[in-house]
Amino acid sequence: MVDETSMIGMSRRSMFQMIGAAAGGAAMYQAMMTLGHAAPTTYTGPIKLEGDPKGTSVLVLGCGVAGMTAAYELRKAGYKVRILEYQNRTGGRSWSLYGGDTYTELGGATQKCEFDSGLYINPGPWRIPYHHTALLSYCREFGIALEPFIMVNYNAYIHSTKSFGGKPQRFREIQADFNGHIAELLAKATSTGKLDQTVSKEDAEMLMAALRQWGALDKDYRYVKSDESSERRGYAKKKGGGLTGEPTPSEPIGVSDILKSGMWASLIPGMEHHWQNTIFQPVGGMGMVGKGFGKQIADLVTFNAKVTSIHQDGKGVTVNYVDATTGGNPQVATADWCVCTIPTPVLSQIEMQVGNKLSNAIAAVPYASAVKTGLQFKRRFWEQDEQIYGGISFTDLPIGQIGYPSTNYFSSGKGVLLGTFLAGLGNGGLNPVSSFRVSAMSPEERVKFAVKHGAAIHPQYETEFENGVSVAWHRVPTTLGCSSSWTDESRAAHYKNLCEIDGRIALAGEHASYVGGWQEGGILSAHDAITRIHQRVMSS
Amino acid sequence: MVDETSMIGMSRRSMFQMIGAAAGGAAMYQAMMTLGHAAPTTYTGPIKLEGDPKGTSVLVLGCGVAGMTAAYELRKAGYKVRILEYQNRTGGRSWSLYGGDTYTELGGATQKCEFDSGLYINPGPWRIPYHHTALLSYCREFGIALEPFIMVNYNAYIHSTKSFGGKPQRFREIQADFNGHIAELLAKATSTGKLDQTVSKEDAEMLMAALRQWGALDKDYRYVKSDESSERRGYAKKKGGGLTGEPTPSEPIGVSDILKSGMWASLIPGMEHHWQNTIFQPVGGMGMVGKGFGKQIADLVTFNAKVTSIHQDGKGVTVNYVDATTGGNPQVATADWCVCTIPTPVLSQIEMQVGNKLSNAIAAVPYASAVKTGLQFKRRFWEQDEQIYGGISFTDLPIGQIGYPSTNYFSSGKGVLLGTFLAGLGNGGLNPVSSFRVSAMSPEERVKFAVKHGAAIHPQYETEFENGVSVAWHRVPTTLGCSSSWTDESRAAHYKNLCEIDGRIALAGEHASYVGGWQEGGILSAHDAITRIHQRVMSS
Repeated sequence: MVDETSMIGMSRRSMFQMIGAAAGGAAMYQAMMTLGHAAPTTYTGPIKLEGDPKGTSVLVLGCGVAGMTAAYELRKAGYKVRILEYQNRTGGRSWSLYGGDTYTELGGATQKCEFDSGLYINPGPWRIPYHHTALLSYCREFGIALEPFIMVNYNAYIHSTKSFGGKPQRFREIQADFNGHIAELLAKATSTGKLDQTVSKEDAEMLMAALRQWGALDKDYRYVKSDESSERRGYAKKKGGGLTGEPTPSEPIGVSDILKSGMWASLIPGMEHHWQNTIFQPVGGMGMVGKGFGKQIADLVTFNAKVTSIHQDGKGVTVNYVDATTGGNPQVATADWCVCTIPTPVLSQIEMQVGNKLSNAIAAVPYASAVKTGLQFKRRFWEQDEQIYGGISFTDLPIGQIGYPSTNYFSSGKGVLLGTFLAGLGNGGLNPVSSFRVSAMSPEERVKFAVKHGAAIHPQYETEFENGVSVAWHRVPTTLGCSSSWTDESRAAHYKNLCEIDGRIALAGEHASYVGGWQEGGILSAHDAITRIHQRVMSS
Repeated sequence: MVDETSMIGMSRRSMFQMIGAAAGGAAMYQAMMTLGHAAPTTYTGPIKLEGDPKGTSVLVLGCGVAGMTAAYELRKAGYKVRILEYQNRTGGRSWSLYGGDTYTELGGATQKCEFDSGLYINPGPWRIPYHHTALLSYCREFGIALEPFIMVNYNAYIHSTKSFGGKPQRFREIQADFNGHIAELLAKATSTGKLDQTVSKEDAEMLMAALRQWGALDKDYRYVKSDESSERRGYAKKKGGGLTGEPTPSEPIGVSDILKSGMWASLIPGMEHHWQNTIFQPVGGMGMVGKGFGKQIADLVTFNAKVTSIHQDGKGVTVNYVDATTGGNPQVATADWCVCTIPTPVLSQIEMQVGNKLSNAIAAVPYASAVKTGLQFKRRFWEQDEQIYGGISFTDLPIGQIGYPSTNYFSSGKGVLLGTFLAGLGNGGLNPVSSFRVSAMSPEERVKFAVKHGAAIHPQYETEFENGVSVAWHRVPTTLGCSSSWTDESRAAHYKNLCEIDGRIALAGEHASYVGGWQEGGILSAHDAITRIHQRVMSS
């Protein structure tokens, strides 16, 4: 339970760092090169595979975004392409659960999603950063409509069972007060000469001016109850109209209480490169990415194909597979080359004829734990009662987060919240107890658990809840985890070996990228893998 | 020209404070009262005017949101209501210019908006804060669809002609580097005992931990080129996939250069209560508010009615008006009471039978200067070339801001930018030279001026520009300015007098509120005014 109390403080950032390393860096923008402030970039637009592959065939294993990207681009370049997919749909983790869908997890429990029409949760990825230019480019090309995802909501809550008597605080209050107090402390150190060895007199003067404005300090450089601070954190009595319009400033939280709460940690995610504004989601859920890519390559896919072995020789690849639903009807697929996007925890259990370097690399990449639970409510009380429109509330309770829908704002119908988001990737400074603990529950228990704990933040849960679904990623048969979990050590030892072509086989997927846990990583790894295969084909 | 060089630094915050004081304060949320963390609020839902006014009549002058709110609520309460409106449309400043619209400004220049279908600019208000609960509530009631407005875009620019050789910087770079440097400075002061008199040892330890994570410092509490800082400001070479995926960290800007640039000032607006996420805009432009309210009261309005005098006695009000287009056809309207929403710069020029207190108050409230210019381009190059989706770039050039459309992202058609937003309210620390200077130009000159200066930030302007429209608010005949410009002194002397009922006349509008420059102020002032009129009617 250690993680639950500390998650909101020190370990939360570690968690955010681990949920999936961001695709960092300056975005690509050719036009700005002339101004000299463009940065080099990995993605340079839809790739071009030039030259005629003369009927060379490629077998793609897995129909998630990596596999679909590989298949789409290879066919466009003239290859004969076929995809084998374990499930009966395209998309892999680019997936939404809609009303009427069923889902069977490892262990056999089957859930039927009872959401009303139009409502969904995204068990896997749920947002697309502005700098994921490859995915955004395909969305545009494939007509997948996008809308803004609200990552930072100043009126959402930060909640800790250990602080403020368990009362949720508004994001705006914690941000204003944290910024204000550190500005006051630094202004005090500066004005009393404590920084004389560190900053020049000229810089110190500019710093004081900046701190006062940025921190909403008063004329004496104090962060106190004032119009300045209330213009950030909100007034106790709002500004109004006419004779009753005069506002009353609100009282900031003291510096010790802010620090002790650890709530400042929840201010960080929205500033991190992969969660910064403007960030998007597909209209209708991330499943639209799975379906939108799927339309492009649907004719290439054999569904319900469970791969049982992968062999190769100097001329090509032979893959055995069976019907995933019956385990019977063994069949064989062959091709000159293979792009394998099967997640490493599954792949490591498949007989595969590759060298030690690659097989060791496959074994070295576990997939992290994560749980998401979606809850349908009779009405959108978070909007109607609490003026929370999209965004996320953070809590130290073992539900991690409450995510509010970034769509259909102000609608009078039902709504679905993300009632649990726990992610523990099993490395770094992270203690993944909560995620594993909740994964061990039955789906029904996980839903009840989310409702019980969420009610501490939204008491309306008790009367408004209708139904829910829950996905624990270690129980997802096709991935056995949420996303790849590299450490600095494992990456140094195995990453290159994982990506190198072994004979006639190249791996792709977010695990074969530096953008782990993101769809962009799957796409970029596919681009890289097929570019290298194409080079070999062209030079042979 | 002083303002142009300083706008991005010290005076920008003053400008933001002046553009319209925010409706501050904690939002209303009854359900949370039980948790003890709700705050009192001015707005308590659609007002209730109880009791039968028995045919009492009210004449409303002006058909903006204040006048329409007053009319809508008064009729609902049983009053006989009539509205006189100078223009030939509802909405007042809640207005969009669409392709095909014409607009004639003071001085006689008529512009025909040549935007393509679906494109627009909002010359007046362009966003609705989440805590403007009155306006949001009416939008919901009247079926006015809303979508998120992107206020903060980490990939938009901050630009100063005086810094970095005039090269625009990305918002994310300035924010990461400003935060990082102040965190490092404060960590240094803390760790070297400089704060021992100020914070306890326990607080100092927590502070160090917070600063390291919040500021993206390295293990030695330094803000330097590192994965930590690049995960905020972006990498020089982005994270990618496969063998080419390894990223390269980017080099932060030094503390002196950050302070000297003054660009930190542009980090502040998105943290201010009235611009915080989640903030909205009407789908199709703010004109949809003017039209949506208008539908409710359309049958009450006499358009093209220019009020020439307002008289009253103990029994009622008599208003003379003429045809606004011809100046002829004098007519008279009478009622028991009058709600006057005519902006003070216009009202002060109308013969009006009120006491000295009110007439002095009317004379004491000037309206501020502001200019907005919309520019249509052949394609959305800011998205396609520069990955800027919505949001605002800030500049010290005399165009003030460039606003990117928060709608139709990724569309392949044309797009309209807000190519100029200058606001100078003539008080406080603000130097309004730019706004006045640009207001003095002809519309064609203002458009050319916006294209010329904007090209320093987006060189694509030169080849992609098609047409533009420009509204200088001091030239708008019905307002003679953008919004009310109170000072602390004028408010202390005149605000109460402006709002008090004078005989049979009550004023309403954003100028009669503490939420100046915002539609919410107009609505709340109308609620307050009609509540007091109703009390008098009921008690008479």
